[in-house]
Amino acid sequence: MKPAASIRATVIVRLKPEVLDPQGTAVQRALGRLGFQGVKNVRIGKIVELEIDDDGTSAADLEDRLEKMAKEMLANPVIEDFEAKIS
Amino acid sequence: MKPAASIRATVIVRLKPEVLDPQGTAVQRALGRLGFQGVKNVRIGKIVELEIDDDGTSAADLEDRLEKMAKEMLANPVIEDFEAKIS
Repeated sequence: MKPAASIRATVIVRLKPEVLDPQGTAVQRALGRLGFQGVKNVRIGKIVELEIDDDGTSAADLEDRLEKMAKEMLANPVIEDFEAKIS
Repeated sequence: MKPAASIRATVIVRLKPEVLDPQGTAVQRALGRLGFQGVKNVRIGKIVELEIDDDGTSAADLEDRLEKMAKEMLANPVIEDFEAKIS
């Protein structure tokens, strides 16, 4: 039996726009101190990259599964938005 | 005087492939426990989104500046790779 091929997927998790991002603010100030002027609205998110075994599931079903993973585990829907894509 | 327009930029920071990612491994195991089978090679990176004041700098110069920011501040070049792009 051949090893199953796998499908690459990406989930980007961002703080919702109305949620303060103190880490982003700290980076913005530090960039200013390093001499990088004119930088604003720095926001820091997560990018989760993973592989899913290709068990013949359709692309639509895979996307549903990925979305469920993001909702249940990768993002906190109270304060974060996410963007899930199969690549 | 009109307020300066600004340019959106993104820096994606990933652990180098040869660096272990314990956070990714923990997420992978947790996904398995939640019933998501067949997930592997979970890697977690950062996505930094920011705006730069458009002071008339050329796109090439902006990209250089962004790359410098990434190298000096956003990524740790010993263990991380980055991908900087102006959007």
